[in-house]
Amino acid sequence: MNPTAPEPDPIGVAVVGAGYWGPNLVRNFQSSPAFRLRWLCDLDAARARRVLGGYSTVQVSAELDEVLADSQVDAVAIATPAGTHLPVALAALRAGKHVLVEKPLAATYAEGLELVAEADRRGLTLMCDHTYCYTPAVLRIREFLRSGDLGELHFLDSVRINLGLVQRDIDVVWDLAPHDLSILDFVLPPGVRPVAVAAQGADGIGAGRACVAYLTLRLNTGAIAHVHVNWLSPVKVRTTIVGGSKRTLVWDDLNPSQRLAVYDRGVDVATQDELGDEQRRDVLISYRSGDMVAPALAEREALRTMVDEYARAITTKTPALTDGRSGLRVLAILQAATRSLAEGGTMIDIDEGHTA
Amino acid sequence: MNPTAPEPDPIGVAVVGAGYWGPNLVRNFQSSPAFRLRWLCDLDAARARRVLGGYSTVQVSAELDEVLADSQVDAVAIATPAGTHLPVALAALRAGKHVLVEKPLAATYAEGLELVAEADRRGLTLMCDHTYCYTPAVLRIREFLRSGDLGELHFLDSVRINLGLVQRDIDVVWDLAPHDLSILDFVLPPGVRPVAVAAQGADGIGAGRACVAYLTLRLNTGAIAHVHVNWLSPVKVRTTIVGGSKRTLVWDDLNPSQRLAVYDRGVDVATQDELGDEQRRDVLISYRSGDMVAPALAEREALRTMVDEYARAITTKTPALTDGRSGLRVLAILQAATRSLAEGGTMIDIDEGHTA
Amino acid sequence: MNPTAPEPDPIGVAVVGAGYWGPNLVRNFQSSPAFRLRWLCDLDAARARRVLGGYSTVQVSAELDEVLADSQVDAVAIATPAGTHLPVALAALRAGKHVLVEKPLAATYAEGLELVAEADRRGLTLMCDHTYCYTPAVLRIREFLRSGDLGELHFLDSVRINLGLVQRDIDVVWDLAPHDLSILDFVLPPGVRPVAVAAQGADGIGAGRACVAYLTLRLNTGAIAHVHVNWLSPVKVRTTIVGGSKRTLVWDDLNPSQRLAVYDRGVDVATQDELGDEQRRDVLISYRSGDMVAPALAEREALRTMVDEYARAITTKTPALTDGRSGLRVLAILQAATRSLAEGGTMIDIDEGHTA
Amino acid sequence: MNPTAPEPDPIGVAVVGAGYWGPNLVRNFQSSPAFRLRWLCDLDAARARRVLGGYSTVQVSAELDEVLADSQVDAVAIATPAGTHLPVALAALRAGKHVLVEKPLAATYAEGLELVAEADRRGLTLMCDHTYCYTPAVLRIREFLRSGDLGELHFLDSVRINLGLVQRDIDVVWDLAPHDLSILDFVLPPGVRPVAVAAQGADGIGAGRACVAYLTLRLNTGAIAHVHVNWLSPVKVRTTIVGGSKRTLVWDDLNPSQRLAVYDRGVDVATQDELGDEQRRDVLISYRSGDMVAPALAEREALRTMVDEYARAITTKTPALTDGRSGLRVLAILQAATRSLAEGGTMIDIDEGHTA
Repeated sequence: MNPTAPEPDPIGVAVVGAGYWGPNLVRNFQSSPAFRLRWLCDLDAARARRVLGGYSTVQVSAELDEVLADSQVDAVAIATPAGTHLPVALAALRAGKHVLVEKPLAATYAEGLELVAEADRRGLTLMCDHTYCYTPAVLRIREFLRSGDLGELHFLDSVRINLGLVQRDIDVVWDLAPHDLSILDFVLPPGVRPVAVAAQGADGIGAGRACVAYLTLRLNTGAIAHVHVNWLSPVKVRTTIVGGSKRTLVWDDLNPSQRLAVYDRGVDVATQDELGDEQRRDVLISYRSGDMVAPALAEREALRTMVDEYARAITTKTPALTDGRSGLRVLAILQAATRSLAEGGTMIDIDEGHTA
Repeated sequence: MNPTAPEPDPIGVAVVGAGYWGPNLVRNFQSSPAFRLRWLCDLDAARARRVLGGYSTVQVSAELDEVLADSQVDAVAIATPAGTHLPVALAALRAGKHVLVEKPLAATYAEGLELVAEADRRGLTLMCDHTYCYTPAVLRIREFLRSGDLGELHFLDSVRINLGLVQRDIDVVWDLAPHDLSILDFVLPPGVRPVAVAAQGADGIGAGRACVAYLTLRLNTGAIAHVHVNWLSPVKVRTTIVGGSKRTLVWDDLNPSQRLAVYDRGVDVATQDELGDEQRRDVLISYRSGDMVAPALAEREALRTMVDEYARAITTKTPALTDGRSGLRVLAILQAATRSLAEGGTMIDIDEGHTA
Repeated sequence: MNPTAPEPDPIGVAVVGAGYWGPNLVRNFQSSPAFRLRWLCDLDAARARRVLGGYSTVQVSAELDEVLADSQVDAVAIATPAGTHLPVALAALRAGKHVLVEKPLAATYAEGLELVAEADRRGLTLMCDHTYCYTPAVLRIREFLRSGDLGELHFLDSVRINLGLVQRDIDVVWDLAPHDLSILDFVLPPGVRPVAVAAQGADGIGAGRACVAYLTLRLNTGAIAHVHVNWLSPVKVRTTIVGGSKRTLVWDDLNPSQRLAVYDRGVDVATQDELGDEQRRDVLISYRSGDMVAPALAEREALRTMVDEYARAITTKTPALTDGRSGLRVLAILQAATRSLAEGGTMIDIDEGHTA
Repeated sequence: MNPTAPEPDPIGVAVVGAGYWGPNLVRNFQSSPAFRLRWLCDLDAARARRVLGGYSTVQVSAELDEVLADSQVDAVAIATPAGTHLPVALAALRAGKHVLVEKPLAATYAEGLELVAEADRRGLTLMCDHTYCYTPAVLRIREFLRSGDLGELHFLDSVRINLGLVQRDIDVVWDLAPHDLSILDFVLPPGVRPVAVAAQGADGIGAGRACVAYLTLRLNTGAIAHVHVNWLSPVKVRTTIVGGSKRTLVWDDLNPSQRLAVYDRGVDVATQDELGDEQRRDVLISYRSGDMVAPALAEREALRTMVDEYARAITTKTPALTDGRSGLRVLAILQAATRSLAEGGTMIDIDEGHTA
């Protein structure tokens, strides 16, 4: 860093939505020198005031227009229900503000597309808060996959289950799978992408929507990805296995002392060319049983890294690592999964799934 | 037990197959007073001799006929590759011997049916060695589900992954899923049964058959069951979650100090009738956050309990807990799963899946 | 709560010390309606300002006198190095303020005694922030021991090891063992108390003070307590086993999904009277192998409960659960342990250990 | 191996004692081609017969003399209570047989010395079955410590607790600590050795002997070792931490998928010479936060490796890795620990502890 360069003015920011996630955004924007938090906006101003507490100088408003009219607000961060993302984010973009949106980007692919187009048109930053992508573990998994250290991806298996809040408006797929799907989108190397998805679900408790669901994704390489999301599990599991041709990695997000484990173990299949006739029949398969390495990871709050990335994208006018388009790709999968769920588990082409 | 009743003569038994599983049968038949082990039979007599070791009085033969001709042999236990189960078991039944067969019962549903019919016709015991059903944990899960202590079954999720031997002749579904499917068959209360299955798989390593697979089963009650089997995972997981309306149970077979955990935690949804109009909109869902109980389980080798059950079935001329019919039900699911795999994951009706 | 009773005025409070622990006190006093945080005081005012952040209305001062002169300050909370507890707390008491002190209460038993006497003389609340005592787990352990549900205490084994900050002024015993000793003091039933302590330590790395230490305590009942504290362990362990005559309890503070486990397992020894002559020789010992219960615990931040207890003690003019005297009892053990350490592990009488 | 060398005749061996441990010796001698098991000898011949089962060609005897008179018996393995080791082993040595003795080598140091002297005099192999030393994990720990990969040893902490059988004749120190002490003896590099021990214990249940005990050992290098043995813990823990100046190693014997973990984490203290005056005050200590490596370990039964080592020692006429002298060193510590226990925890010099 150049010590003589003048510190740039902080970016004025407003958080919209003081519900479950808003307080975390408030806290992280406050701790980042790149931002100056101007407003916390919520239809329920008393709730916003409670979130700020009795010692804060941040302003409260129940009126989005008031906040957007403030010229000191350069950027907004939206943590309202998904159904309201389109109008709130559109209003912000039209007022010339950069926009960060809680996952999922919007309630439908079409709405997400509208946001991306509007941000492009105006040259504004549109970013999706895929928080997990900014954990030290996921950033490291991305490196492992992109550097080739894992070899080619064979399978990715993600389990995210817990006794969760049964949502009123969305099923477990739309509530939890955006985490897994945004991580998948984030870590895949260039050129590798999911092309189809099948989803199975159940609503054991009669909640009126799937509370347990399984998603199977086909990748263009032939690899498979699978996601298990579940609101009804009394035990909490958040484990992802990423199986590669060279190494296999296990991410256990609930094991703070060993979040990542990289195994030099696996099955190797000799290619035909390497083998003589006799061997071809017999010694096709061998096993590696090497060490496991748990790499040291920095302990840094993902949301703080995400907030810094938002500042970087705004300042440099370059797309955020999880920009609107990544949010859109996740919406395409979610929408195809919903269609598959309705059709009893048929494999749905992702590119076509959202056009229905 | 009546101390004055004369001890019945032990049942003469021969083990056929001295490969991976045979030695376990040899050891358990030897330790059961209900049996007298007469022969270990294997095409490779030297292998059979090695299994018995240098201190054994048990006879070795490479000839099945020789063994079946021995009138002191009342029963056989077959631990040969699945493809040979039909001829070996048929020969044994035709020689008037009771038959225990390694899982899966046979290589196809049709072959399994032939064995069941032959045993019925001759009034002989036909039993399938679904070993896991005889673990103290699974026996207890069965009680929990049948007694109503878990309430109605909502979901069952079973994960069985490991760095496993890639089989030459069968895929991971036929290799590992028989365990999960036989357990499912064993623990479901009367009247509850799977009716359809969808399967997705992948062969990342180019082994020529699925090395990773996911099975989703629909039950006649609307409940869902899911099985993840995987030969490529460097970490071993054997965990089953059984979610009920009253309680949810987690079986972790790799945690000897706490194999079963029963959680009095869950989500309750009030039925419409219990609620007034206002409430109906708002308070449908409540959460229970009660204690967890890990019941004390006896430590007993499952295979020994299985062997005792074989003796009981033979002696009392009643079906074994895992009789030929249970083996047949598992084959019906496996065959439907194979068809689903070939069709890219379509949900296949189990009753029709095996007729293809 | 009586809804018509007027809400009492909040207690004006100042936090002294903006180092490691102060920020946690700041946060919890701010979130408690029973308090109004007036000041954060630190010799380094810039550090205090950084802790409060750029959005706070709380005042900063580098002058303790300024803070103590504020009549709106009813109470202080001291989070400065142990060596400064005496002068800071004395000044506060003499200014008529209630005092909460970070553990340990003071740098020596004599200093702690001075504080207790001063608070008594002035009728002010003196409380020691033994935070762990206010965790849901420890509150529950206390209930278990006091209600008799565990039976008589046989042993208590506490391990608190981690890669910890090697302190400049104190050894690992004074840094970490206050946690274990204050918990021990807190959970023991009335009439049961430690009477002697032996300590062994090592300074492998040449830090000039013990970095690894073991404390063994004799209780007046014959029971034993043992504490392992260690700054050099790359793995973090915080596990306490409380062995009773009826049940045994394991507290694993690093397992959020199962912090407490109560085992109905153990060894029973028949008393001589219950046995005939023959039996006396042979069947003295039997084993129970019952269930384990992991009780549901509320998830509440211990420091918030501690802050509420401070308010309760001030308002009701009754001793806090962890009052100055409990801090004094912990100091007596620490001082005896230090003497034992110096003498190579001799067992030191606690009542006399601090008089040296 | 030289394929043309004639296979040496197997060593004729007899196992004496068919109680808890004898059956394991029987099984492992039978599976080793280096041995030919001739006899299982027990005062209770029926028990010996039950151990061998109904299919064995091994001879049973209730008479030690009969076994020792058999010229085909070259070696014996003694798994009788410790109090009988002296007469049984002496008789065997005097009959010219090599001797393997269950841990502890003998009931007292003096008795152990007598055995060592007798074996020396006759040029026979005397080996102590310190089984844990032959686990792949301990063999690897030994390598780590001797190669210098861990750096200098700072501390070793060993926990071995479980709901154990309260022994009739010995306390928990003599029952369990031989494991930890023999491992310590085995892994320490040449020149490093324990010089003194202090022991504290408790008999909560009134069993008449210590059921919980803590041993602290001083090493000649200033390092510390600590052992916690406990019969009353409902949870089983078998964890050893070996802290070195370069790396620290954790051995969790109950975690088969990750028994050893080697941490490149620790605290470094700069030596005075490396530092300038200013620094000397401030930057003495730094922290390393590197990766953890869990080395791949072979899965091999320790007892089988021990049996092979017995054969090697006999055949090559060289001391076994755990020869009589290692058993003697363990006895010296045990005896000093017993004296410390009786004296309330005084630190006892190991060289003098056994002379009392």
